[in-house]
Amino acid sequence: MLVIMQQGAGQATIDHVVERIEQLGLRVHLSQGEFRTIIGAIGEELASYQEQVLSLAGVENVVPIMKPYKLASREFHPEDSQVDVGGVKIGRGQCVVIAGPCAVEDREGCAAVAQSVKEAGATMLRGGAFKPRTSPYAFQGMGEEGLKILRECSDRYGLPVVTEVTDPRNVELVCRYADMLQIGARNMQNFVLLSEVGKTDKPVLLKRGPSNTVKDWLMSAEYILSEGNQRVVLCERGSKGFETEVRFSLDVGAVVVARHNSHLPVIVDPSHAAGRRELVAELAIAGLAAGADGLIVEVHDCPEKARCDGAQSLTASMFTDLMGQVRQLLACLGKDAG
Amino acid sequence: MLVIMQQGAGQATIDHVVERIEQLGLRVHLSQGEFRTIIGAIGEELASYQEQVLSLAGVENVVPIMKPYKLASREFHPEDSQVDVGGVKIGRGQCVVIAGPCAVEDREGCAAVAQSVKEAGATMLRGGAFKPRTSPYAFQGMGEEGLKILRECSDRYGLPVVTEVTDPRNVELVCRYADMLQIGARNMQNFVLLSEVGKTDKPVLLKRGPSNTVKDWLMSAEYILSEGNQRVVLCERGSKGFETEVRFSLDVGAVVVARHNSHLPVIVDPSHAAGRRELVAELAIAGLAAGADGLIVEVHDCPEKARCDGAQSLTASMFTDLMGQVRQLLACLGKDAG
Amino acid sequence: MLVIMQQGAGQATIDHVVERIEQLGLRVHLSQGEFRTIIGAIGEELASYQEQVLSLAGVENVVPIMKPYKLASREFHPEDSQVDVGGVKIGRGQCVVIAGPCAVEDREGCAAVAQSVKEAGATMLRGGAFKPRTSPYAFQGMGEEGLKILRECSDRYGLPVVTEVTDPRNVELVCRYADMLQIGARNMQNFVLLSEVGKTDKPVLLKRGPSNTVKDWLMSAEYILSEGNQRVVLCERGSKGFETEVRFSLDVGAVVVARHNSHLPVIVDPSHAAGRRELVAELAIAGLAAGADGLIVEVHDCPEKARCDGAQSLTASMFTDLMGQVRQLLACLGKDAG
Amino acid sequence: MLVIMQQGAGQATIDHVVERIEQLGLRVHLSQGEFRTIIGAIGEELASYQEQVLSLAGVENVVPIMKPYKLASREFHPEDSQVDVGGVKIGRGQCVVIAGPCAVEDREGCAAVAQSVKEAGATMLRGGAFKPRTSPYAFQGMGEEGLKILRECSDRYGLPVVTEVTDPRNVELVCRYADMLQIGARNMQNFVLLSEVGKTDKPVLLKRGPSNTVKDWLMSAEYILSEGNQRVVLCERGSKGFETEVRFSLDVGAVVVARHNSHLPVIVDPSHAAGRRELVAELAIAGLAAGADGLIVEVHDCPEKARCDGAQSLTASMFTDLMGQVRQLLACLGKDAG
Repeated sequence: MLVIMQQGAGQATIDHVVERIEQLGLRVHLSQGEFRTIIGAIGEELASYQEQVLSLAGVENVVPIMKPYKLASREFHPEDSQVDVGGVKIGRGQCVVIAGPCAVEDREGCAAVAQSVKEAGATMLRGGAFKPRTSPYAFQGMGEEGLKILRECSDRYGLPVVTEVTDPRNVELVCRYADMLQIGARNMQNFVLLSEVGKTDKPVLLKRGPSNTVKDWLMSAEYILSEGNQRVVLCERGSKGFETEVRFSLDVGAVVVARHNSHLPVIVDPSHAAGRRELVAELAIAGLAAGADGLIVEVHDCPEKARCDGAQSLTASMFTDLMGQVRQLLACLGKDAG
Repeated sequence: MLVIMQQGAGQATIDHVVERIEQLGLRVHLSQGEFRTIIGAIGEELASYQEQVLSLAGVENVVPIMKPYKLASREFHPEDSQVDVGGVKIGRGQCVVIAGPCAVEDREGCAAVAQSVKEAGATMLRGGAFKPRTSPYAFQGMGEEGLKILRECSDRYGLPVVTEVTDPRNVELVCRYADMLQIGARNMQNFVLLSEVGKTDKPVLLKRGPSNTVKDWLMSAEYILSEGNQRVVLCERGSKGFETEVRFSLDVGAVVVARHNSHLPVIVDPSHAAGRRELVAELAIAGLAAGADGLIVEVHDCPEKARCDGAQSLTASMFTDLMGQVRQLLACLGKDAG
Repeated sequence: MLVIMQQGAGQATIDHVVERIEQLGLRVHLSQGEFRTIIGAIGEELASYQEQVLSLAGVENVVPIMKPYKLASREFHPEDSQVDVGGVKIGRGQCVVIAGPCAVEDREGCAAVAQSVKEAGATMLRGGAFKPRTSPYAFQGMGEEGLKILRECSDRYGLPVVTEVTDPRNVELVCRYADMLQIGARNMQNFVLLSEVGKTDKPVLLKRGPSNTVKDWLMSAEYILSEGNQRVVLCERGSKGFETEVRFSLDVGAVVVARHNSHLPVIVDPSHAAGRRELVAELAIAGLAAGADGLIVEVHDCPEKARCDGAQSLTASMFTDLMGQVRQLLACLGKDAG
Repeated sequence: MLVIMQQGAGQATIDHVVERIEQLGLRVHLSQGEFRTIIGAIGEELASYQEQVLSLAGVENVVPIMKPYKLASREFHPEDSQVDVGGVKIGRGQCVVIAGPCAVEDREGCAAVAQSVKEAGATMLRGGAFKPRTSPYAFQGMGEEGLKILRECSDRYGLPVVTEVTDPRNVELVCRYADMLQIGARNMQNFVLLSEVGKTDKPVLLKRGPSNTVKDWLMSAEYILSEGNQRVVLCERGSKGFETEVRFSLDVGAVVVARHNSHLPVIVDPSHAAGRRELVAELAIAGLAAGADGLIVEVHDCPEKARCDGAQSLTASMFTDLMGQVRQLLACLGKDAG
């Protein structure tokens, strides 16, 4: 890291900073300009070092040189990773389309959606059994009963299933039924939960928090990877932005940056970004064109009766149309549907 | 709620929407303008109703009329609430100053800080034993050992103590040692954790998430209140903003709006907003002037050796100066230190 | 517009609001619910009405029903517009690729870039002669001399040219040389300048401000349209976002929403969004896939000697590669390069 | 500046960067770590140097060391500046309260407001004659007729007057009538206008743009200062934030940072931040407590008839109450009303 001293910092102050940096086990490289002194601290950059140096008297700023994540970085792992979920491959030229209802509401509805998305060409199923809701008075999901339904539909239609886990005490339960665990955007920095899913052998879909940087996102991936679970897929679902006519602003730049800086596969969720079903298809296509390795899309057999997110759920027929566009685009990009 | 139909929505479409609204148990009040039809839906506004209506064909927008929180609202409870933490009162003209280290690092350091903040006039102690850190490689706190140290320091100096809980499985443990539970900003929408602390009888300090609205914040308070725990204190600690020279933008507007819309006490955390100790005092004073019912401030006996947040920790002497300004301002505002 | 009265607003208060609304020439439609009274105000919604009603005692909120822009709206003009710039068509299935240096720096460099982008397949030339720079000490552009060079290069290579105008006093001057006038992002709400270009007969490229909504953007377009100039092309160039590794966050959602709500063509500027040339191509492709009617891209013959924006300028060879991808994607989308 | 090379950059690449930096007239200080090479470039940091170096092959990032503004910086001018506007002093312990209508609408109304704010203790008058409005269909101000009314009211009540200028062609006209020129938030980066007011001898009130950093703001001040006009007062009026119940988020952190980094006086505009008159007073007090050198507040004799911003305009009686609080706070802070 580079330590930028305040203008006018005296020799004693500089000496003290140098001494402290050396105590951290780093080598020092001093550069005294006309106006400022810059201290290069050479060696491993532990997360805590930057904070400690920043708190020293006379230090104006500390500039980290190395990325704070390792296992998630492309420098560590130059090749694209590919994650296999029950035989469906994600990444390294293989694109996945995950589709299904926002929440599981009953057996028949879930099966109807699973069948229709299978027919349209989806390769994985999604559905929520534990729903994190802003309001304590909103439908919170069916719990284990919902997991059972998802498992049944998954088996029946041959679609590996991803579902959200929100409570570290439920990780084991969800693992019994799901093929892939989802960490929702609001839990992206729930580090307790990240560690817990990192201890499982299930692939994890890690959504980006709506106001987090790519660096934050990859640090959260690092929590999972550093527990030993290497099967992480990132999912961009929109940032909080200025625009009021979309629910969130799908950040294609985040997709591009994540793929440059990390080897992990990245998919996009156009449904939560759009907030309205009329906008979903265009965002989905833009996300794939930006280089995403797949989509996760909400589809409902009767959106107007959905207990959550009905407004952004595609009908089966809209989803079929979208799949047509997806296939055409993937062919143009030289990629395969997973 | 008001349902705004799309321009050109035909009679059959309107009839279908009316029918669905009536099925939800609401009365309908129709208003057909020159360009648009507006449907007023009268009755209780459950969280899910808005979503369901929004998903109907022909509906352009749904405008909620009622606030989605109840127990947290000033309409429900017009008087200011006051929360008692081990004899220290917060709210209704009583201001609290909570001070202490970011994280508990050892017995001596914690005691030294507790003694000095007590002498300077703080009325509560803060300190972290479970630290949510962006990096899995950063110091994660001392755990139960840290809780024991906090309890000792609290008893020895007569300062009730608040400490963060990050894991629903640890709530009971933390309750054994702490006088008040803190929900950190990153966990503001960790609904599982909110429900869990709502089931305890401990007062809760609920920090605002860095990109959440006051409505989101009060909905999170509602999770706690609706479980039966009425002792919630809100804490503003800064929003993600455009400014790079502060860590977060202390949002005095959020303090003002929260106090208008809710009866719950609101305090501010100038340390996390500032990110640098030179800026803490001015933000603290601004927060109190905006109407906050207290402060929570990071103080360290030797900030440059702090294992986290050293750069934003005040020295004992800076904290003493701040307390002088605080007393003067509270006298001017006609408020008491808690 | 809908006027939502505060809870508990008395009859006299309501009567006064009704009276004021009628004085504005609007008809009133009253809806008294259990908790609130809602007043529908039917008739033309002038911009000032909403503000005036909002300021009345007892009014909690005013919800506009109609969009505040007319000439720019798709309701007013359901078909896609197409803008012709010196024979190059933009919109209604015709995509344009505008390329060139950030700033004109000398005759030879500009000509070299013009030649290479022409050969690669660009259909219009870009280049700045008046540069709005954050610093008063930065290169401000060559002024009229730069305009002459652009005109020459435009004529020589058969590429109609767009260039920025920043000063209402220079509009006439720029019109003498340019085929299209650019309003930069920082001037999106420079209403004086918008009115001035609205009085010319030149097509206008209107960039979106980095923290403006689509509504703001279309209101700025309305300034130009309402002066009589119908030849407006919108340009998305990125929002201020949380991500630090891109300069701005290219907002594909804004492209989609603008195209839904307006008939005006929309292009994207991936160069300013990316900030680094390695990211430009992926953002360009994502923007086109989201439905944009073209691109504006910075290209430099020797980026490392560029006097501005060198880091985000493509080399001629990178631009040639991008054009290959663009052609392939447009073919897949069934669109023509303009 | 510090130039951080990409990992694995070879010697030839490094040599080329060093050579280019030396061509810019800077001295080079090389630091080769285990993983990266850092090049310190010592000497004057012109704005364009950073861009040019960033565009070189092998360069990962460039970190500026020096602030890009000079005349506006506290390093250049360590003492607080004080600006005199027709005998009213702003800064260096002197606080100003500027009050008046959003827009001048007629002679009687303006005079009534001027009289009442004078009686309540305001020391300057505000009022708009040229209004930058989002909608081309909204009231755009009375123009020169409005300026004449402001001049009369200013003279009659002994209140120096500030009014906005939006067009470089009108600067001279506005100077004939006003004591201070206001640059509105939307024009903060209208560099043409900044240069023009920098050439006058009138004090300038420079509002912060709603999504600009303090650095941007001070760069805009630098435009004025570098033209020779040293009488600049900064004004914070709120950032675009997440909160929907205020119009903008008053950024007290920006006030604190601006006062740390610059010698220029800083005032706050709580009216535009609040958007609703009930919130104005608390934000005003918070702003002063954060260290602001004054306030600019909208007051209207009959807010509900105001042609703009009525909802956020205080009544005369609310303003009188606010002045009582202001006097009490300034006494507590040891400052004078200007």
